Amino acid sequence: MFFASDNWAGAHPAIAAGLSAHAGGYSAAYSDGALDKAVTTRFSEIFEREVAVFFVSTGTAANALSLTAYNKSGGIALTHREAHLIADECGAFEYLSGGGRLHGVDGASGRIDPAELERALDRLAPEVVHTGRPIAVSITQSTEVGTIYSLDQIAAISALAKRYKLPLHMDGARFANALVALDTSPAEMTWKRGVDVLSFGGTKNGCWCAEAVVLFDLDRARELSFLRKRAAQLFSKSRFIAAQFDAYFRDGLWLETARHSNAMAARLAAAVEQSKTARLAWRPEANEVFVILKKTNAKRLEEAGAVFYDWAVPQGLIVEADEMLYRFVTSFATTAEDIERFAGFVA
Amino acid sequence: MFFASDNWAGAHPAIAAGLSAHAGGYSAAYSDGALDKAVTTRFSEIFEREVAVFFVSTGTAANALSLTAYNKSGGIALTHREAHLIADECGAFEYLSGGGRLHGVDGASGRIDPAELERALDRLAPEVVHTGRPIAVSITQSTEVGTIYSLDQIAAISALAKRYKLPLHMDGARFANALVALDTSPAEMTWKRGVDVLSFGGTKNGCWCAEAVVLFDLDRARELSFLRKRAAQLFSKSRFIAAQFDAYFRDGLWLETARHSNAMAARLAAAVEQSKTARLAWRPEANEVFVILKKTNAKRLEEAGAVFYDWAVPQGLIVEADEMLYRFVTSFATTAEDIERFAGFVA
Amino acid sequence: MFFASDNWAGAHPAIAAGLSAHAGGYSAAYSDGALDKAVTTRFSEIFEREVAVFFVSTGTAANALSLTAYNKSGGIALTHREAHLIADECGAFEYLSGGGRLHGVDGASGRIDPAELERALDRLAPEVVHTGRPIAVSITQSTEVGTIYSLDQIAAISALAKRYKLPLHMDGARFANALVALDTSPAEMTWKRGVDVLSFGGTKNGCWCAEAVVLFDLDRARELSFLRKRAAQLFSKSRFIAAQFDAYFRDGLWLETARHSNAMAARLAAAVEQSKTARLAWRPEANEVFVILKKTNAKRLEEAGAVFYDWAVPQGLIVEADEMLYRFVTSFATTAEDIERFAGFVA
Amino acid sequence: MFFASDNWAGAHPAIAAGLSAHAGGYSAAYSDGALDKAVTTRFSEIFEREVAVFFVSTGTAANALSLTAYNKSGGIALTHREAHLIADECGAFEYLSGGGRLHGVDGASGRIDPAELERALDRLAPEVVHTGRPIAVSITQSTEVGTIYSLDQIAAISALAKRYKLPLHMDGARFANALVALDTSPAEMTWKRGVDVLSFGGTKNGCWCAEAVVLFDLDRARELSFLRKRAAQLFSKSRFIAAQFDAYFRDGLWLETARHSNAMAARLAAAVEQSKTARLAWRPEANEVFVILKKTNAKRLEEAGAVFYDWAVPQGLIVEADEMLYRFVTSFATTAEDIERFAGFVA
Repeated sequence: MFFASDNWAGAHPAIAAGLSAHAGGYSAAYSDGALDKAVTTRFSEIFEREVAVFFVSTGTAANALSLTAYNKSGGIALTHREAHLIADECGAFEYLSGGGRLHGVDGASGRIDPAELERALDRLAPEVVHTGRPIAVSITQSTEVGTIYSLDQIAAISALAKRYKLPLHMDGARFANALVALDTSPAEMTWKRGVDVLSFGGTKNGCWCAEAVVLFDLDRARELSFLRKRAAQLFSKSRFIAAQFDAYFRDGLWLETARHSNAMAARLAAAVEQSKTARLAWRPEANEVFVILKKTNAKRLEEAGAVFYDWAVPQGLIVEADEMLYRFVTSFATTAEDIERFAGFVA
Repeated sequence: MFFASDNWAGAHPAIAAGLSAHAGGYSAAYSDGALDKAVTTRFSEIFEREVAVFFVSTGTAANALSLTAYNKSGGIALTHREAHLIADECGAFEYLSGGGRLHGVDGASGRIDPAELERALDRLAPEVVHTGRPIAVSITQSTEVGTIYSLDQIAAISALAKRYKLPLHMDGARFANALVALDTSPAEMTWKRGVDVLSFGGTKNGCWCAEAVVLFDLDRARELSFLRKRAAQLFSKSRFIAAQFDAYFRDGLWLETARHSNAMAARLAAAVEQSKTARLAWRPEANEVFVILKKTNAKRLEEAGAVFYDWAVPQGLIVEADEMLYRFVTSFATTAEDIERFAGFVA
Repeated sequence: MFFASDNWAGAHPAIAAGLSAHAGGYSAAYSDGALDKAVTTRFSEIFEREVAVFFVSTGTAANALSLTAYNKSGGIALTHREAHLIADECGAFEYLSGGGRLHGVDGASGRIDPAELERALDRLAPEVVHTGRPIAVSITQSTEVGTIYSLDQIAAISALAKRYKLPLHMDGARFANALVALDTSPAEMTWKRGVDVLSFGGTKNGCWCAEAVVLFDLDRARELSFLRKRAAQLFSKSRFIAAQFDAYFRDGLWLETARHSNAMAARLAAAVEQSKTARLAWRPEANEVFVILKKTNAKRLEEAGAVFYDWAVPQGLIVEADEMLYRFVTSFATTAEDIERFAGFVA
Repeated sequence: MFFASDNWAGAHPAIAAGLSAHAGGYSAAYSDGALDKAVTTRFSEIFEREVAVFFVSTGTAANALSLTAYNKSGGIALTHREAHLIADECGAFEYLSGGGRLHGVDGASGRIDPAELERALDRLAPEVVHTGRPIAVSITQSTEVGTIYSLDQIAAISALAKRYKLPLHMDGARFANALVALDTSPAEMTWKRGVDVLSFGGTKNGCWCAEAVVLFDLDRARELSFLRKRAAQLFSKSRFIAAQFDAYFRDGLWLETARHSNAMAARLAAAVEQSKTARLAWRPEANEVFVILKKTNAKRLEEAGAVFYDWAVPQGLIVEADEMLYRFVTSFATTAEDIERFAGFVA
């Protein structure tokens, strides 16, 4: 019952095998090898258009460099108040952009409220030197709280960004989970809805370490190549990332692992719904389930070996004094048995 | 005949196997897992004292963060004029330190000349606000040109650094190659000679991606943990680095692969010494051999499938108009057959 | 009727005369001259203890460098949500600290609410690498909305900062206005209440350009001297700042000009209170008066030559559709006639 | 006999009077006042074309922001090895550019050697991510050692910069001294010879504090306005700089003060040439004279009240063991009597 995070799982056997298969022989370093190029082509196929792909070591790097590629003096990137960029990256964007700022926008269920975004942009858009100026909007798909922007919701945010001539970034640390939940295509969920740059995450969905900046806006590619290098994110044996993505995309593995973890989350949520001692904080849409549990129940779960984190209660959610909000994350490695054991505890 | 760089080789089979062996099961993320801790303990055993270990994604990251941990306003780090830090890292230290400066010191054969270092420190040490101030000295072991600092030479640089109250950093991208060449212990080559912080590289010597900052100065550990995170260098599935180091250290694999690549370099150098059409630029001591070849010869080699780079001719080295300086790097994967084929071409 | 800002006024005649008086002769550059030293001594007398004084060119520089002197990796400075640091400095702190973050804390009437501050510190204090860590608390005295922290209120914020081992910074762009309003001493309003570093502003109160970082925490002085130089804030002919402060402090000029502008603000406020067409947004305590006016009235005022800015309506303040919130700032140069003319318009 | 630096002098009486004349009345803050605009127009007249003008507080700020306006990831600015930017600004460019690098180019008498510049550009121009890339060339006019680039020499450097598509920056801390020495026009010495951005210094030539970035490349103006603000260099009472420049330009005062200090330097140099105990290190062309003196003589001079600095002996200059190199700087305030007293000591 390891529900702490999807990054507590290791590597999917097919990913590990893919790495081993590419261990031998020689290959040009620094992303110039044949496999790197093949995988980049694969990304272009998957996204149904030419993209530029930059492997980096962490999702934090992907986010920070994506936004930094668009930064200007006095730059302010707008994102949801609870976004990973703000809450969990130790100011990496601020650091790597040389002093950019993140402006948190409100919105229910982890999604930016377009009206709130518009209000913030209205205030910042005049580009007064005292105030600084907006440089990008960033959304997370799926969100930090396990919800998903519908295609229309992405389009609405995108339209606002475009109105203010701002690029739209998507933090896709759990891109595949959102993709299969929406049953749409990568193209539809990104550039066809106005996304300019994407943090594409494979790590949480079965890779060891496979993160990439995917640029739809090819004009920024040259800049990003320098930015990645001086941010110390250019792998020498870059094919070890390429090999993971190669296995990840092969035979739809990435969609399969994402479907599995979403399905496990759905079963976990169903168990909660039938429970008399637990309830859902909100409807889960991907692979994270937020549950309000009696603290005593949570303790019993932990004593039985379950691992999961408590979570700050967002405004508007009512949690009783003897309760707490907890997050349960499923992954490719979660088993039906894990869910059943969990169900037994909350029944 | 792949002599372009030791990072053109893939992963040693034992490293790949080690990764696969640790692919399953759950482990705490962000370097808090059991294997991470075991590997850190292993580092302490190898260095015969407690050390703090920070996995990072590249040697450039290890160098930049090592020095940044010691940076101050107006800080200047002193290193060899041809050091990787200056020549090949796209200003990563300057960037990640928020504007630190690298000061190149002269010295023959890739080693800092202590007299030149002293002259530079004398000038910078008064800590005048206009000039800035020294914050660290950095040496590379083995050096960028395939030579090695003897233990006494390390001690001499270290004594100078200490006299000016400066920490000493060692860029150990090819640490193992130097270690086995000197036939000494990790402790003797580092902290026992005054090294305070080490970039410990495993990638060039048979790993996929295994780089670490090794801190002997434990007081900086807390700062470095924040620095690494906000530099976007904290791996979530950190055990995939730990697993590589675990295999790397097991049964002395790392020393064996380093001995092998050094031996291959020695044989390549011997072939050059017996050649009538090629000569050594200087005596190789690790796994890089710098050879002066007639350009026509180099072309023939390339046509036969050899891969290697030309190199800027350093001051003082005489190279005829029809010649060029070339670098040949060996690795764990280099075979005796590679060397023999090479020898045939320069005979 | 120039009420746009106290920085629309020029220099007080005594300041201009002071500058001229020191125009001749030679003096060591870069803050090492005799007058610089005398003025530093004067600061120590005024604050009743040894202080380190760093002249800088703007209040923004004083704020950014004060906080940067305390910054660490992943550092977060806490200040009021409407603070000048956040709203009007174009991210100077973020920039000059190499990526620090400002966290806005709520509080009525421009003052940080201690309970809100405590909540924020509780969340940030554990120093988790993902979240970053608090590095300082900053208050503005007088505040951006013309209110003042009482000595007890300063002590309460300070006690919280101390509990979390954080330094307390005071943005004293309008230090003198607060000082005379509280009828206290500089020592009582600062270090005796736990302030560690102060942005001391003279510009808004009658100088041309006289801003200083005043450090009570002398351990940071060496660092700040380098920080100021590399931030390009070390004046060569530094005595031209010293000469202004010399005149500013002479015969209590600074207290006199502050008393005058406060008094003018009080009269302006009194006129508003007697008005049937205008009302105070909140009680002014220094030299800024926030007035809710009918837009038609405001227009008439402007047509009569008055200069003043409208202001974003803070949460909780009720402003009718035909009204707007406006800011009126008085200065040493404001005359009783200005106020009377204004009063005539709002009568 | 104050020859330490031209910034040891105070303000020229006409500058002080100009400031006082503009002390009264109200004016828009932050460079939007009428006088600011008039002075900007005056700059355009003087340079015979439209320019954008940004007042800043120090020459270091002007240099750092000029180059930062052109910086890119991995950016390297090339300047003379002894340039103020490298030697005396505490890494301000590196800091304010977020990690840019300065590359020192050799050249006799303080002037960049075009052949050396070409060699450096050849190496950096390919824009390889490992190496970084050139972003600007900077020359100093007059140079740090009191020499001057002829118009042809400026054109030669400029042609090289243009060939590599790089902007040319001129550090004009002593712009007027060079201008009158060459007996040319501001336009001829700058944009007509390919200069794109200029640090225009008034402080050393009789102002209190009057430095400006003068942009010929108007496309960068918007960026620079944000850059200046967030670098904390946007004065609120900006007219106090404007008033100085207004007086500086009036009736050719700036040319007159520069001619005077140059003439004083020429007389000082003449005295050295006639001396048996002193000799010129090289021919002075502006207002700095570098003299080789017997140390005993230098001591006598100091005992007589003279103030001047010793100077690092550049490569190629022969100085005997009992001698030292000294710098003597003249200013608008230097008198014929000062020179005569000096002459008496070296006769």
